[in-house]
Amino acid sequence: MHDDPITQASGPARVAEPGEGLSDAELALAARNHGMPLEALLHDTTPPGLHYVLVHYDIPFVPPDSPWPVTVDGLVRRPLTIDVAELRSRPAVTHRVTFECAGNGRARLLPRPISQPWLVEAVGTADWTGVPLRDVLAEADLSPDALEVVFTGADHGVERGVEQDYRRSLPLAEALQPDVLLAYAMNGAPLPPQHGYPLRLVVPGWYGMAQVKWLRGITVVDKPFDGFQQATAYRIRQAKTDPGEPVTRMAPRALLVPPGFPDFMTRTRVVHPGPIRLRGRAWSGTAPITSVDVSADDCRSWTATMLGPEPEHPWEWRTWKLPWIATPGEHVLAVRATDAHGRTQPLEQAWNLGGFANNAVQRVPVVCLDG
Amino acid sequence: MHDDPITQASGPARVAEPGEGLSDAELALAARNHGMPLEALLHDTTPPGLHYVLVHYDIPFVPPDSPWPVTVDGLVRRPLTIDVAELRSRPAVTHRVTFECAGNGRARLLPRPISQPWLVEAVGTADWTGVPLRDVLAEADLSPDALEVVFTGADHGVERGVEQDYRRSLPLAEALQPDVLLAYAMNGAPLPPQHGYPLRLVVPGWYGMAQVKWLRGITVVDKPFDGFQQATAYRIRQAKTDPGEPVTRMAPRALLVPPGFPDFMTRTRVVHPGPIRLRGRAWSGTAPITSVDVSADDCRSWTATMLGPEPEHPWEWRTWKLPWIATPGEHVLAVRATDAHGRTQPLEQAWNLGGFANNAVQRVPVVCLDG
Repeated sequence: MHDDPITQASGPARVAEPGEGLSDAELALAARNHGMPLEALLHDTTPPGLHYVLVHYDIPFVPPDSPWPVTVDGLVRRPLTIDVAELRSRPAVTHRVTFECAGNGRARLLPRPISQPWLVEAVGTADWTGVPLRDVLAEADLSPDALEVVFTGADHGVERGVEQDYRRSLPLAEALQPDVLLAYAMNGAPLPPQHGYPLRLVVPGWYGMAQVKWLRGITVVDKPFDGFQQATAYRIRQAKTDPGEPVTRMAPRALLVPPGFPDFMTRTRVVHPGPIRLRGRAWSGTAPITSVDVSADDCRSWTATMLGPEPEHPWEWRTWKLPWIATPGEHVLAVRATDAHGRTQPLEQAWNLGGFANNAVQRVPVVCLDG
Repeated sequence: MHDDPITQASGPARVAEPGEGLSDAELALAARNHGMPLEALLHDTTPPGLHYVLVHYDIPFVPPDSPWPVTVDGLVRRPLTIDVAELRSRPAVTHRVTFECAGNGRARLLPRPISQPWLVEAVGTADWTGVPLRDVLAEADLSPDALEVVFTGADHGVERGVEQDYRRSLPLAEALQPDVLLAYAMNGAPLPPQHGYPLRLVVPGWYGMAQVKWLRGITVVDKPFDGFQQATAYRIRQAKTDPGEPVTRMAPRALLVPPGFPDFMTRTRVVHPGPIRLRGRAWSGTAPITSVDVSADDCRSWTATMLGPEPEHPWEWRTWKLPWIATPGEHVLAVRATDAHGRTQPLEQAWNLGGFANNAVQRVPVVCLDG
């Protein structure tokens, strides 16, 4: 098994050795995928190219107006094949929701899990337009023994020796939530290639791995789905032998628009003394955001910020702001969100093998000049 | 000088120590900027989010329909202030041209210059629409002693202790080329924020540092511009004391659409045995591409590829293709472009301190399965 060519091309999951720098493969992922530059927190919706992107394999090339039949099969009484053009002709629904990669923050963990090396910026918010999945499932007429719904993307590759199409499932109760969409538009335009053109799944509140792109198949099953991305990847575990818990909804997180201006290379923020309006956004996938606190002394003391209006959709990020007087010297700003379930952000992240659901507070060193 | 806060926030140019892994700052740049995933070579024009982006400081936040006055001053008889809305009302010109970052390939150099750690994918091609710069310069009526034109962007930051707006110049003869544009649209839509909304410079054939984004000032001068991005950065030098040569036009380069499918983590390409159509694009900023050769044996032997039609614009990439029969085992594909001036790509890159204009051939390891 371990000598076959596909296993050789791949490799096991691992964490970095102490002091081990970023590998060429991690850099290759960092060069092609991208986070949201944090100044883009100023945009209510994140334009393509600023919204984070994480693609496991290749971005499928789909020419405009290609037919794109999507099959609905498995435990349904009326299997369907629906073309995207037909979906576009139905009444459209739009939800503004925040997506975050489950691996956001991974590169800060020690030891570092070897994978896409996100710092803190794997996030974005968009208006996603499409048709509710549950209408399509109702049309297909679910069997009474339906337990999960499996979604298959057109992206194809290898992961830890397993050749696969990207595939994830949702429990039936989640798949039937009214805001789960088969989406064909982002911010009012056809999906960009890297966001799943021509069709993707949108599961508001869940981490990005659930948002299956280039969607071509929907299969209803009566057993828990045990595909690679469900049973092997995207689980919170301490050791490879630990079955772990599945990664599901987004933990609360707040981010700060870094104030002032950056140094190109160090990325240190530089400000002039005086009043500065700190601002940013916060979100959670489990309960609405109820408070955001800011520290200007590296997490020693915290001040409540003013929250913006409650967003229309519970899984859309919420604005916050706080005036701050910058004084000459070095400061470390930090920001922490809490949701209506009382979940908040840790100052130090609990480690897990895959580096998932890491919502440790963002810390932003700032140098304030003398004048 | 070296103790002031702005110098402390910054730091000198340096190269990595032997064995030194990627720094947090290099990773921060890699997470926010992004290359073009190589499978996007299949697109004639590169959509936003796939086209490479390199931003020195923050992306300015410019709300839609903000007034954006651009000043034209210095050695002109008729200083102007033109609003972008006024530029949009003029007859529009569109050029399809290829952009590449001057630092493309930097992360492969040994020792590695510490900066944005590009591998090979910092490229993209777009339709840029705007008005010819020379029409605006003619309107401003150049003084006879005009030597260079300096372009100022709205992006502001620090670099090696120097606080600055991003600023670059062109020699007058280059600025007066008919295809140099003040561009307000990319691929038929308003510029995305990260590509310079609402106005940028487009200098076909030149590396990306010349394509000043968020353009707000055009100043005609009678001396060689000695700003940071001209006299300190973007020079090809062996040592800090070496004045070096300026980085200008793009060296020839060809890239290959990686065949088959990838392993997520190693990025190794996997193919099945049999015929494969190798294809890709090639470009140069000094003369049209005249040949592209492919090696399937790690640069030991080369085969001429079939070039696609000559592009409409000389600085737009050109397609190439070559059939290849994959046989079980490991292969290293490579591709090399040559332009009409006989310039080609080295197998090993000559090193320089900034890691600029590195056009060493792309090598793509491929594992072919047994069946």
